[in-house]
Order: sequence, then structure tokens, then C-alpha cells
Amino acid sequence: MTTFKNKTVFISGGTRGIGHAIGMRLAQEGANIVIAAKSTEPNPKIPGTIFTAAADMEKAGGKALAVKCDIRDEAEVINAVNKAVETFGGIDILINNASAINLSPTLALEMKRYDLMQDINTRGTFLCSQKCIPYLLKAENPHILNLSPPISSINEHWFKNHVGYSIAKFGMSLCVLGMSGEYHGKIGINALWPRTTIATAAVQNLLGGNSIMNASRKPEILADAAYYILKRDAKTTTGNYFVDDELLASEGITDLSQYAYAPGHDLAPDFFI
Amino acid sequence: MTTFKNKTVFISGGTRGIGHAIGMRLAQEGANIVIAAKSTEPNPKIPGTIFTAAADMEKAGGKALAVKCDIRDEAEVINAVNKAVETFGGIDILINNASAINLSPTLALEMKRYDLMQDINTRGTFLCSQKCIPYLLKAENPHILNLSPPISSINEHWFKNHVGYSIAKFGMSLCVLGMSGEYHGKIGINALWPRTTIATAAVQNLLGGNSIMNASRKPEILADAAYYILKRDAKTTTGNYFVDDELLASEGITDLSQYAYAPGHDLAPDFFI
Repeated sequence: MTTFKNKTVFISGGTRGIGHAIGMRLAQEGANIVIAAKSTEPNPKIPGTIFTAAADMEKAGGKALAVKCDIRDEAEVINAVNKAVETFGGIDILINNASAINLSPTLALEMKRYDLMQDINTRGTFLCSQKCIPYLLKAENPHILNLSPPISSINEHWFKNHVGYSIAKFGMSLCVLGMSGEYHGKIGINALWPRTTIATAAVQNLLGGNSIMNASRKPEILADAAYYILKRDAKTTTGNYFVDDELLASEGITDLSQYAYAPGHDLAPDFFI
Repeated sequence: MTTFKNKTVFISGGTRGIGHAIGMRLAQEGANIVIAAKSTEPNPKIPGTIFTAAADMEKAGGKALAVKCDIRDEAEVINAVNKAVETFGGIDILINNASAINLSPTLALEMKRYDLMQDINTRGTFLCSQKCIPYLLKAENPHILNLSPPISSINEHWFKNHVGYSIAKFGMSLCVLGMSGEYHGKIGINALWPRTTIATAAVQNLLGGNSIMNASRKPEILADAAYYILKRDAKTTTGNYFVDDELLASEGITDLSQYAYAPGHDLAPDFFI
């Protein structure tokens, strides 16, 4: 059975939220966590920096490396990958977690906002994958996990109100579609998406404040789901679009009450589900 | 029945190939054709400029406007749209035809090539749509037609060998998916894709020379298909992913021998079909 002891996990946007939770879960298993993200200075609205995140990972039982990295910049991604390899000797797992969201319809979406979403979500996923794959190909049970929705949700309902965001976000899932075929039997490349909204700073600040937070689950549900996916054999576990509750059920975990952000509140289904 | 007399058609990349053929077909019906493309100087490898294309359109019976426009540049698209409206009084039809192709797999695709495809194909389609839609909404039977493949072809087979190109090209189809929902009943927004390869300079120069040319149909098959799509009622003809031969069959046209580039040769199925 795979363990995560001394395995190196490269996480885009791992300063807080879902990326942070996945890092913590694997740090608890003794993994080396590379926090490749932008926040180097504290921000009163969204707490945490790459350095506090790295300290959290070490406290949880892992090793950690904080690298300032804007994943829109190829040179910064190359630098972060090189630092990870110099520090830990390789890369075993890539978590494409960083994401930007703007739910404007076509005419209201400024092109700079369109570009931000494309460049972080689809392009950032492609770019981080391209730079990590040469190292993943040398690892024992290498995985790429994209935090992105099921391909089966590509339909008018999920595109008509915010086509710019949907193209950018499903682009991450299309990376899974292509790369899982390209690296079949070599790297396990999968997507993971939550059934419900997840209580993160992005949801609190951008999507609707306390009412959505109260209808959300904690990021730890995705962290546990990621843990089980990444333990699986990369040769055979690939090209899947996992949804957190279904994945946990396949591991025998059906009581999800521990993940409620505000126990007793009704849960809100996530976008794209 | 809709006629194209004095209707204004904005075509991205209409200097040659498919965009040029669609422009010619509608010019023959008396339309005003806006050639929004990059080539202002003759190139020995790929003949034609926006000016020779405009002259072709006028010779065919239409009016024409050549506007130098790199559709990667928002200011140039705004300028081209403004020039079209100043010259012809509005925009009735947008043809998102411009496209870049590079079939490299993940590790071999330089990011500048990834960006070129994304910025012309998906982003260029989004951008031209965003800038034309305010004028299309004032037109009588407005259409957007994207030269892009059926959503139903989103599967591993068509992504695993050239994920960067496939994401960029299917992004044009995802624009149809979202925008046809967003503008249902107001603008007819559809995709059109050829069953076979099409004999264009891109196929000749980039994809495989004479052997693929001989297995191709002429761009005129797409021009005729576009003509029939754009005649239809925009309120009810929307959200479709038309394939040229099926569309022509629905108009009673089943003998396609006139479209063969090299009669007697076997035809090659196009990508994504």
C-alpha cells in the first residue's frame, strides 16, 4: 500500500482553503509539501501567506517548502519546480488547485478578468502539468489531481450564465481528459469536485458570505477524498472525475456529518453538480 | 425568407480559405463583408491580403471593408467593429473563423504556441462575440457562426494527442454552448464543422501537403452550409453543432461530388469527427 512518507506534493495555490487542507492531510502522513502560491505578505481580508502555510504543514508532521509563484508566469513555475526538486529530490504528486472565479455574463466580463481566469485555471493547470510531468514520470506512483468539475456537466445549464468562467474551469477538466489519455499507465490523472459548496475565503468573500458558508462543507472533505485518490494505483486510477461524497462512499465513508461547516444547516449543491 | 442583401457580415480571418469562401458566398447574395484579419502584405507562401479579399468580395457582388485586425488585441477588435458599424450601419452576422493549429503533445507544446491557439481560437471567439453582440442584438435575424467541432466529440480520443489544440478549438464550441443559452431567442448561435478535411493553405502548409489536399473537399462546402444556416430563423436555429454534409442533406443536397478538391480520391475524415 502506498504511503506518503517523504513523497513530494506540489500544490498550486496552497496558502489557504482547499489546497491548504489537502497539503495538511498529506503532511500528516509525512509528505513534503511545496506551497507554490502568490501570497507573501499578510492580507487582512484573507489571512495566511505561503510561509504560514509552510509552517502549518511542518506542524502537521510534514516537511514544507514555500515558493513564491504566480502560475501565470512560466519562468516562476519553472523556478518553483526546480526549487522543489532541489529541496526534496523529485516530485510525486501535482495538485492543480489554484483557481480564479468571476461569474459575469458575456458582455459584463472585462477581458482582463477573462484572462485572469483562463491564465490561472486552464493555462496554469496546463503549465504546472507540463513542468512537473518530467519529474512525475520518474516517481513511483505519480498522480496529478485537478480540482475541477466532471466532464459530464458540460451542458448549456452550466455555461449560459457565466460562459467565461465555465470555459476556464472546465478547461482544467479537459486537461484531465487529454493528459490521462496521453500518460495512461504512467501517471494517474484525475479530477475531484465537491458535491456541495466548500467553506473557503473565496466563498466567504466573493460568492455570498455567511449564508453560503453555512450551507457548505469544510475543505477537509476534499482533503480526505484526495488522500484516498492519491493512495490508489496511478496505473489504473486515471481519467476519473471524482465527486467527493461518491469517492468517500467507495471507501466506506458515508457519514459525512463531521464535514459540515455549520451542522444542522441544509447544504447547497456546488456549481457544476 | 431572409435575404442577405445589404446585411453586414463580420468575418475573422477572412483573407483566404474557409472564411474567404463564406464571405464570397454571402457577397454573391449582396451582403456587406467585413474582412477582419492580419494580412496586409502579400506573403509568397500564403497568397492574399485583406485588400485582395475585399476586392474579391466586391467582384462577387457584395460590398466589402478590409480592416487590419489581430483578434488577440481587444483595441483592434473594437476598432474593427466600430469601422464596420460606421461603414455599413450595423452588424448582422459574425463568423468566428480565425484559428491557429499546433498538434504538439503536452511536453512539446511551447507555451507561446499554446497561447497563440488559445488567444485566437477561444479568446478571439469570445472577444469578437462580446464586441459584436451589442450590434447583433439590434439586427433583424442575427447570427453567430463558429467554425468549431461538435461538443459530442469531447472525449479522450480527440484530446490525448494534442490537448493544447483541442482545448483551444473546443473552447469555440463551448462559446456556442454558453452564448446560445444566454441569447436564446435573440441571436442564433451555432457551430459548423466539416466532415472531411478542407483544402486550405493551412492544410497544404501545416498538416500534410498534397496527400491531404487530395483527400479534402473545397471550402465551398462550408460556404454553402453556412449560407443555409444563416438563412434560418435565428430565434429557433441556435445551439446546434452542424456538420456540413448533414446540414446540406437537411436542405436536400446529397450529391457532394462538386465539392471534391481532387475528384476520384478517397476523402479523409476531419479531426473531431
